[in-house]
Amino acid sequence: MDITKYLNRAELNASDKRPLYLQIALVVADKIQKQILPPGLKLPPERELADLFAVSRTTAINAYRKLEQQGLVWTKVGSGTYVAQARDAEPLSEVPWPQLFTAYPQNPLASILREIVSSPAPGTISLAAGMPDPDLYPLDTFRELFNSRIGRTSPADFGHIPIEGYQPFRLAIAAMLNEKGILASTENILALSGSQQGLYLLSKVLVEPGDYVVVEAPTFIGAIQVFQAAGARVLSLPCSEKLSLELLEDFLIRYRPKLFYVIPTYQNPTGRVMPENERRDLLNLAQRHRLVIVEDDPYSDLYYGERPPQALKALDSYGGVIYLGTFSKILFPGLRTGYLAGPPVLINRLALEKQLIDLHSNNIAQWLLAMFLHEGKLAQHLSTVHREYKKRRDTMAKALRRFCANDLEFVIPEGGFYFWCQLKQAVSSQRLLQEAAKQRISFVPGEAFYSVSSRDQEFRLCFAAHNETILLESVQRLAKTLAQITKRNKEKEAQPSLLWPII
Amino acid sequence: MDITKYLNRAELNASDKRPLYLQIALVVADKIQKQILPPGLKLPPERELADLFAVSRTTAINAYRKLEQQGLVWTKVGSGTYVAQARDAEPLSEVPWPQLFTAYPQNPLASILREIVSSPAPGTISLAAGMPDPDLYPLDTFRELFNSRIGRTSPADFGHIPIEGYQPFRLAIAAMLNEKGILASTENILALSGSQQGLYLLSKVLVEPGDYVVVEAPTFIGAIQVFQAAGARVLSLPCSEKLSLELLEDFLIRYRPKLFYVIPTYQNPTGRVMPENERRDLLNLAQRHRLVIVEDDPYSDLYYGERPPQALKALDSYGGVIYLGTFSKILFPGLRTGYLAGPPVLINRLALEKQLIDLHSNNIAQWLLAMFLHEGKLAQHLSTVHREYKKRRDTMAKALRRFCANDLEFVIPEGGFYFWCQLKQAVSSQRLLQEAAKQRISFVPGEAFYSVSSRDQEFRLCFAAHNETILLESVQRLAKTLAQITKRNKEKEAQPSLLWPII
Repeated sequence: MDITKYLNRAELNASDKRPLYLQIALVVADKIQKQILPPGLKLPPERELADLFAVSRTTAINAYRKLEQQGLVWTKVGSGTYVAQARDAEPLSEVPWPQLFTAYPQNPLASILREIVSSPAPGTISLAAGMPDPDLYPLDTFRELFNSRIGRTSPADFGHIPIEGYQPFRLAIAAMLNEKGILASTENILALSGSQQGLYLLSKVLVEPGDYVVVEAPTFIGAIQVFQAAGARVLSLPCSEKLSLELLEDFLIRYRPKLFYVIPTYQNPTGRVMPENERRDLLNLAQRHRLVIVEDDPYSDLYYGERPPQALKALDSYGGVIYLGTFSKILFPGLRTGYLAGPPVLINRLALEKQLIDLHSNNIAQWLLAMFLHEGKLAQHLSTVHREYKKRRDTMAKALRRFCANDLEFVIPEGGFYFWCQLKQAVSSQRLLQEAAKQRISFVPGEAFYSVSSRDQEFRLCFAAHNETILLESVQRLAKTLAQITKRNKEKEAQPSLLWPII
Repeated sequence: MDITKYLNRAELNASDKRPLYLQIALVVADKIQKQILPPGLKLPPERELADLFAVSRTTAINAYRKLEQQGLVWTKVGSGTYVAQARDAEPLSEVPWPQLFTAYPQNPLASILREIVSSPAPGTISLAAGMPDPDLYPLDTFRELFNSRIGRTSPADFGHIPIEGYQPFRLAIAAMLNEKGILASTENILALSGSQQGLYLLSKVLVEPGDYVVVEAPTFIGAIQVFQAAGARVLSLPCSEKLSLELLEDFLIRYRPKLFYVIPTYQNPTGRVMPENERRDLLNLAQRHRLVIVEDDPYSDLYYGERPPQALKALDSYGGVIYLGTFSKILFPGLRTGYLAGPPVLINRLALEKQLIDLHSNNIAQWLLAMFLHEGKLAQHLSTVHREYKKRRDTMAKALRRFCANDLEFVIPEGGFYFWCQLKQAVSSQRLLQEAAKQRISFVPGEAFYSVSSRDQEFRLCFAAHNETILLESVQRLAKTLAQITKRNKEKEAQPSLLWPII
């Protein structure tokens, strides 16, 4: 065979900055692994290899040395270098990785959430991810803060800091919460690598396998996943219209759940706001049963009309409410910074758990946020995004009414990021999503927000991440999708799906 | 009683920026909780309260309203505001937090590690924390990068990114590893919130309760803690002189451990470098037994003479070595960014676990590091710190020889951060630490690095965090401590300590 066809300088990538010997070794290794260079084949002598790749002889020697280390070639003294035989022992000696892993619950939601977080295919308008619009990130303010303050900050602030967080950050958070009527001092605050981490830590500290937890249905996917991964059984409390406190009390008596996870303001995905009287009734019930409430509050600063009612945590007189906040929705997700407010004894126990996970959260983000908050930049930024997101919400509501009114029902959200849509005809949102992909539009099917299967004729649209022109276009694509489904639905009746055994 | 003594403007802190009504409510709440204002006491009318604190009547009303919400006062219409009775139901209705927590292993090391990470008492020279010197953090370079590049980066890069990490960061890490002879492409790299997180994720994915893992003895505290928290039984392999591969093989056959955690280069705490032939022998043994090796490599870039041998991962021909790296020692800990290199199937499984914990690591740090590495700033920085840390090591070695040679034995480390000292006389390092505190100096007692109790006459000194003047002073304080202990030891014989039952 003509080896020079496979081994020459053209196989290298000119922009590759790795040492040449390694690049050459990788080219040869690739051909061996693909059996283009079969076992037993004699390879070119070092001098010849050097010529083929136009490199020094030392480089060629090092390339063969690397391949020998990897067991891919062997050198017969006085004879030359040969492609190694696929050793009999080789398959046996490989590490069977997947078989060594601990069991992982095969939750179909995991892949859905991954898909949502990852970027969409080109040309597709994604209304899936619950993210603010990158064009609105206040990066210039952060540049200004970084540039002007780093010289005035003690370098030690970028060393190790307490697990609970960077002290000026905790102070700024306590002050911000006090403004909202939540009594808190620094000892009540734990800095988090995103509020997701708060859910994770709480599941480690409060939930054992077999325990019950209550969530709203529908609710945030990531919370369901964390509780299920902790081995919890998840009880669903319908929340689309009104929280049924009777059902919650029934759950409390029957199953003694360890906690109730709730998003009272601009709920994800429904956009619902729990009215103040419902909040008080919930707290009374919780107090009677010593129920721990985990209040997740990522959206309450994003109101487009009236301010929403005070947080449960602000109304909490029995001390059973744990509060989670984040900057991912009001600033940008890449900060990966959230916080938890709770009693010091809880903060302390959570910190012990957090130490194992990451010692403490990123100092740079906490340092930037502490200054951002202290200087009142948040209020300025919020007034900008209020104005912009309100316009987007209104545009989308108008477009949905105009183009999709026959097919969809929805309530206009008073804040947050989402329209929660109900399909009027018998189409699953999963099927709708598949059809929508053809029109290059995506969203999150309703199923993703339930821990038990739902009737699944719902889906969530995020209106925050795109400007009005794109939103308008997206609704038109959605309308086209719906029209095509209606047409086909008339052609054939849906078959009920049954589960066949796999044999 | 004269209420005005307790309720007046002097009780407020002028620099407190919280709303006045809240500050007043906090003052009153504090007096009620301390029973200075006893239950049933009639509080000043709103107008009077307003006068006492020199605030508007509305502010006074809001303060009482807040206290009423908290259940601390109650208003009798037409009569006034009273301190609420400590309700009979009150103690019952509080949430008994600590009793709700999942069990946590009472590992005495936890508090030691926390103490090390936290800052020392004023005036004390801490040789405890394994941290670079804050004066050497390259913050100016980071300022320059942040300032000049943020405008040229897509804002979307500060939104959500893949769990596995920021792509340019993964690329830069792969290139860096290739330079070190470790074959890796981006799919082999997982970005971590510090290498501590890599240990945590591996313990979640590879270790079930009751499994065995092998560690060197002594070794990094944080690793022992993570494995123990995962329910593992930890087997100790003595490493002070030479790794006993015979004992390791015995462990492998007898206990089938899930992994071997090892720091081959400038080991923490001993400073030892595993010679190349020992590395090859270890890999051969590991290959025969399909042993998974977790290679932790925070220090190999910090050499003060010859470069150390190649990483185990670079010599690994059977694919069983998982590699952990971090920027905490070579740059600064506040970046909270590390990385793991391993087969894609493992990266994928670890990412599923990481998603639950923090979705992905901080973008800002990954973005800064990607530029820092891409532009070759790391090599510049390393040459600066090599020079500086080499001087510090030499100064400390000289001082220890001069002032402590009668009491201590140690080997001069060729790299890394630590002197590992053996006490010649029968003094526990714990006792030495207590005495040293009086001389205002601290270090880590040897016991902290063992999963089983040791003879405990060892301790670790970090020479990286202070300049030569301070190091010299610290060794003199240490010498003084040792002299006092010797004197007292001569006065009385140590009593053997026995365990008495607690009855």
